[in-house]
Amino acid sequence: MARLPKTLEDLIQHFSRLPGIGPKSAARLAFFLLQSEESDLEKFSETLGSVKSDIKTCERCFHISETEECEICKDTSRNTHLICVVEEPLDVIAIENAGGYQGRYHVLGGAISPLHGKGPEDLKMAELFQKAREKEIEEVILATNANVEGEATAMYIAKELEPLGIQTTRLAGGLPFGSDLEYTDEMTLAQAIANRRSYKKE
Amino acid sequence: MARLPKTLEDLIQHFSRLPGIGPKSAARLAFFLLQSEESDLEKFSETLGSVKSDIKTCERCFHISETEECEICKDTSRNTHLICVVEEPLDVIAIENAGGYQGRYHVLGGAISPLHGKGPEDLKMAELFQKAREKEIEEVILATNANVEGEATAMYIAKELEPLGIQTTRLAGGLPFGSDLEYTDEMTLAQAIANRRSYKKE
Repeated sequence: MARLPKTLEDLIQHFSRLPGIGPKSAARLAFFLLQSEESDLEKFSETLGSVKSDIKTCERCFHISETEECEICKDTSRNTHLICVVEEPLDVIAIENAGGYQGRYHVLGGAISPLHGKGPEDLKMAELFQKAREKEIEEVILATNANVEGEATAMYIAKELEPLGIQTTRLAGGLPFGSDLEYTDEMTLAQAIANRRSYKKE
Repeated sequence: MARLPKTLEDLIQHFSRLPGIGPKSAARLAFFLLQSEESDLEKFSETLGSVKSDIKTCERCFHISETEECEICKDTSRNTHLICVVEEPLDVIAIENAGGYQGRYHVLGGAISPLHGKGPEDLKMAELFQKAREKEIEEVILATNANVEGEATAMYIAKELEPLGIQTTRLAGGLPFGSDLEYTDEMTLAQAIANRRSYKKE
């Protein structure tokens, strides 16, 4: 980039470090902000500066939280015998937004990935197994991502929980809603056929 | 979004107001930042807060600048008889990065767009015409965008400058470098044929 004021170049730099934002988009964002209201920029800046200190990790489920225990763990109306294991806090939000789930969560903080040097000891695994031993857990839903790492992680957990006599389940694999058979990849289609359900009259 | 800490929700809000960033990307960016270093966040926040006050508009060409006069206008080695008229500061940067141009600029701050209620009086037009009358300008390159608004703006300026006896030129229209004829739109192709150049031996 030629001849840009230092602060603007810094701002572009900061934006281009974000995932999915290249140097061109970063410049566009920075110029957009340059033309927006001073008060908006100040609020954005304050929020950005305080987000890390304002937000904690729930000490029970490791979801993000403003307090030591998150809203979901605090909610006594939820089923405490059901745990949904996910990789990231965003997954909790996705499941909450989907609605219908009334149990609790356990956020691993990623998935087992030997390629990235990430083993079970780098995740909140010990805490999950301790919970499984100490609390009355009936079912653990393995809601890790439907990719190689997510599957390996789910398998690892299922194996560890087996001796404890806790039922483990895995999210269903199949066609995403609204998809065309024609454009569906082979893995998904094979899974959708293998897991087909019988058409019951209701 | 269900059950998110207030600061995080604010941050997502701020991101989703940026151009080209939807609510899902905004959430992804916010969570990414939540996991980055505190010091990085602080610097990002500071830059964001000071960008507006740190950056001025060059009083001569209306490009962004850290001082009253921008680096390009200050540069005495540049040709002062040549003005390149662009819509936005980003266009100046694009032309500077392309290299080769050694004249000065004039940033209009947009284009004439009756649909968006933007007329010549909302742009730095009067300043351009004053410059054209007072300074010794030999050529004005109309480098507005190659769309309807940009063309209309270029035509308007060319008409106004005609009585002053200043030569006006427009950026060439044609095939972008690396493009396939097959995938080129009709307007571009028609332009490329109309503006074809003779193949000289060098």
